Amino acid sequence: MDYSSKLLENAVEEMSQFPGIGKRSALRLILHLLNQPEEHTIDLAKALVKLRTEIKFCKSCHNISDTELCDICSSHKRHVDIICVVEDIRDVMAIENTQQYNGLYHVLGGKISPMDGVGPQHLNIQTLVDRVKNEDIHEVIFALSSTMEGDTTNFYIYKKLEGLAVKTSTIARGISVGDELEFADQITLGRSIMNRLPFEDALKQ
Amino acid sequence: MDYSSKLLENAVEEMSQFPGIGKRSALRLILHLLNQPEEHTIDLAKALVKLRTEIKFCKSCHNISDTELCDICSSHKRHVDIICVVEDIRDVMAIENTQQYNGLYHVLGGKISPMDGVGPQHLNIQTLVDRVKNEDIHEVIFALSSTMEGDTTNFYIYKKLEGLAVKTSTIARGISVGDELEFADQITLGRSIMNRLPFEDALKQ
Repeated sequence: MDYSSKLLENAVEEMSQFPGIGKRSALRLILHLLNQPEEHTIDLAKALVKLRTEIKFCKSCHNISDTELCDICSSHKRHVDIICVVEDIRDVMAIENTQQYNGLYHVLGGKISPMDGVGPQHLNIQTLVDRVKNEDIHEVIFALSSTMEGDTTNFYIYKKLEGLAVKTSTIARGISVGDELEFADQITLGRSIMNRLPFEDALKQ
Repeated sequence: MDYSSKLLENAVEEMSQFPGIGKRSALRLILHLLNQPEEHTIDLAKALVKLRTEIKFCKSCHNISDTELCDICSSHKRHVDIICVVEDIRDVMAIENTQQYNGLYHVLGGKISPMDGVGPQHLNIQTLVDRVKNEDIHEVIFALSSTMEGDTTNFYIYKKLEGLAVKTSTIARGISVGDELEFADQITLGRSIMNRLPFEDALKQ
């Protein structure tokens, strides 16, 4: 495409490096910036650069943090003997939003995926094993996505933790709350029947 | 949502100011930046700020440009007696890509839309009238979107140009090339029948 401006072309080029943003969307976003006051773009640029250059990751759980140890790891109100293993920090946010979990986290930074060249050595798995060994951890909850890669990663970590005195569990799979049975996929429906709960337990939730 | 980092929260806040990008997408884009080398974010920020602070608009046609007069206006290969009126610079790019037009442009910067508080005084209409008066323009082509706002703007400019020795035309509306008749809307189909072409003319295209 002919942008009639080298500056515009550069900006579109940079903007379209984001996943899911093509040249056309990038152009739309950038024209929006041009319609806004200059400070707007400068603020955006500053926020991005500041984040990228100053961001820290918690030295214990690898969650994103402004400090050495994240708010969750340094909180006194948390159960420090239970770790929930997640793929990335978005999952931490999602679980925190449910307000149903009060333990610690461990952010792997991805999942084992040979197709994408991601092996166990690229993930924060060893630090998890170290935490289980050195801290007084009673339970590790696997909360990875229910895909082949997620299951592989679960199993790899499970093997690594074998022999250590720690309980492992995985989050429940089943029909989403509010979903109709007829539209659920077979595997999910099958699992939700296998893992049925006593009705009295469900009533309490 | 709890971002567990003020830096992250700021960046998401800034990023979600773009039209069509919510907090969730903004977070996804920003996590992508965090997975890339630092230079990547710095380059992006630089490109955006450089564009926003240094960009010029052609003093004749208001197209985006790195110079006072854009490449199109300063080209010697263009027909300088015909002006195509468009809404914004994306339309210039779209028409340029067709390689079917060899005249000049005039970028209005929007269309008259009282609902959005956009009146004729906010658009580059007077400069168009001045161009027609002062330059040797034979034809003005209206190439605005076929909406109520587009039609209003067309008509407003048409009235402004009345009495000046200039031909006005509007781009053809009709069935898209490759589209099936049965799925076309009534108005478009109606217009394409009214504005039918001699078959010999169509054969030449």
